[in-house]
Amino acid sequence: MKKQILEVLREHKDTFVSGEDLSKKIGVSRTAVWKHMKQLKEDGYQIESVSRKGYHLVKEGDTLDPNVLEVDLKNEYIGKKIYHFESVDSTNNVAKKMAHEGAIEGTVVIAEEQTKGRGRLGREWLSPKGDGIWMSIILRPEISPSEAMIITQVTAAAITLAMRKILHEDIGIKWPNDIVLHKKKVCGILTEMSAELDSMNFIVVGMGVNANVDIEDFPEEVKDKAISMKTYFGEAVSRKDLTMQILHEFEALYSDFAKNGDIKKTIDICKKYSVTLGKRVKIISRQKEIEAEAIDLTKDGQLLIRHDNGEIEEVLSGEVSVRGLYEYV
Amino acid sequence: MKKQILEVLREHKDTFVSGEDLSKKIGVSRTAVWKHMKQLKEDGYQIESVSRKGYHLVKEGDTLDPNVLEVDLKNEYIGKKIYHFESVDSTNNVAKKMAHEGAIEGTVVIAEEQTKGRGRLGREWLSPKGDGIWMSIILRPEISPSEAMIITQVTAAAITLAMRKILHEDIGIKWPNDIVLHKKKVCGILTEMSAELDSMNFIVVGMGVNANVDIEDFPEEVKDKAISMKTYFGEAVSRKDLTMQILHEFEALYSDFAKNGDIKKTIDICKKYSVTLGKRVKIISRQKEIEAEAIDLTKDGQLLIRHDNGEIEEVLSGEVSVRGLYEYV
Repeated sequence: MKKQILEVLREHKDTFVSGEDLSKKIGVSRTAVWKHMKQLKEDGYQIESVSRKGYHLVKEGDTLDPNVLEVDLKNEYIGKKIYHFESVDSTNNVAKKMAHEGAIEGTVVIAEEQTKGRGRLGREWLSPKGDGIWMSIILRPEISPSEAMIITQVTAAAITLAMRKILHEDIGIKWPNDIVLHKKKVCGILTEMSAELDSMNFIVVGMGVNANVDIEDFPEEVKDKAISMKTYFGEAVSRKDLTMQILHEFEALYSDFAKNGDIKKTIDICKKYSVTLGKRVKIISRQKEIEAEAIDLTKDGQLLIRHDNGEIEEVLSGEVSVRGLYEYV
Repeated sequence: MKKQILEVLREHKDTFVSGEDLSKKIGVSRTAVWKHMKQLKEDGYQIESVSRKGYHLVKEGDTLDPNVLEVDLKNEYIGKKIYHFESVDSTNNVAKKMAHEGAIEGTVVIAEEQTKGRGRLGREWLSPKGDGIWMSIILRPEISPSEAMIITQVTAAAITLAMRKILHEDIGIKWPNDIVLHKKKVCGILTEMSAELDSMNFIVVGMGVNANVDIEDFPEEVKDKAISMKTYFGEAVSRKDLTMQILHEFEALYSDFAKNGDIKKTIDICKKYSVTLGKRVKIISRQKEIEAEAIDLTKDGQLLIRHDNGEIEEVLSGEVSVRGLYEYV
């Protein structure tokens, strides 16, 4: 209903539409029109209403409402079905549950708040109400578990492209799963999979974008490493525009890989915007802690490092700190 | 209650216990004692009852009832908590759900029947009521997805040891996940994981043992490849004894790996009883189909093959047929 009202308002962008016309076109009572108009205003849509003239859409809202997103998003399958929640424990958890129950590839889960938002290795990811983009995508690629890193890289590349297009800013990728703005984390990616030994049941890739989060309210240890767009630019960004752009870039890069086995574009973007490559890095794994130079990404999105003795190694796991970013100096 | 009655009967193995004594010892009515006695008989326990003397346990039952298994099984954590169902879609599905909800390591799910029993790659696994051992174990090892093959090998080794101890028969392992008896599949293993890129949330390892299944009733294409113990030996085996032995061997081998990082014993068993090594094999993967010689297992449980040009390669995935087993001749 809201969706239909919005469509009519948009068709008459430069004029007013009367409540009566709206109620006739859509086939509902004028009271119903009035109620939905109220909801749209609550979603941030600026709607002028003048008696005897009717309604006029002055400014689009910044809502992550699926009724709006699903219409505006020009994708083939990523985000064709979006589930939007006020509050969940974690969008990845909700998405994993849906995937187990058969949700199709491209299904998206968005929440206004995560009460148990998670980063890698079960770490907490603060996800306060209404200010971030807390979103997960369900994927069903025909790959083995060892190839799952590619999905993280596709996601990092898509988010970086989207942010650069919307914000025209210097956004970088800290391998493998952080997006950084001004040397601080503005977005994290959490890739989780359900798999057999050599085949995938499904992948859920989650992202937490500190879009308009008030980082000032965060604990000190988080504030040191994290940043929000609102904090950096001094004003709120459109969560809706950014979400749509991310899903749009994602579909293009992911389809290249899943349908054509082509990952080159993704890896090129990840290399181009990497804040890791060419830097001194510290790698902490379960077994050991080493320092080396980050020199390249493999064609599968793994990091290549050069040890101080000249030996070159592929990093398959572990925590990577980059000199000059966060606490590693 | 049933558990307590069984304990008292066992304490008085060579004599009778009166219904009155039982009701006093356990603190329930004689009618309740009578009811539970009836249930035990239904579970296959042979209980003699003589008026004025009471009850006498003649022969243990063959039940997979957790009340009995949890008492009899001398394990530290594998099978300390057993859930037993009459019918489920698949024990792996139930176990995965429980694991998502926080079930601890070693939790076991057993069902008398699976309506959607699965083998690798979503293939059907016939699991009729009451005759097989359809069982899954929840594990939480600190490993990466690429190491999950080890869990399949631990399971294969444990099942093989258990079957050989109970049946004194020539049982072999067809790498990576089938147990064979007389060249036919007597048990399959399905390892599934929920993981991040380089850390495990949990593993569920499922096994389907065609213990006393009437293979004669199976479709032709299954009969050619599958066998049950009952079919082979001409009489039913004790599902209870076999289940307990499997869980017992499993705990020993799994603990070696999970607690001490030691997988040698498992790999030695897998090599010793392999029906794959030294044989001509056909390997069908998504990309290609090749024939080669299976020559060894790596220390991580992966198969090494020698191509006809002498080149040696590690098999990371794909379907492996062994000449002389099943249809490959």
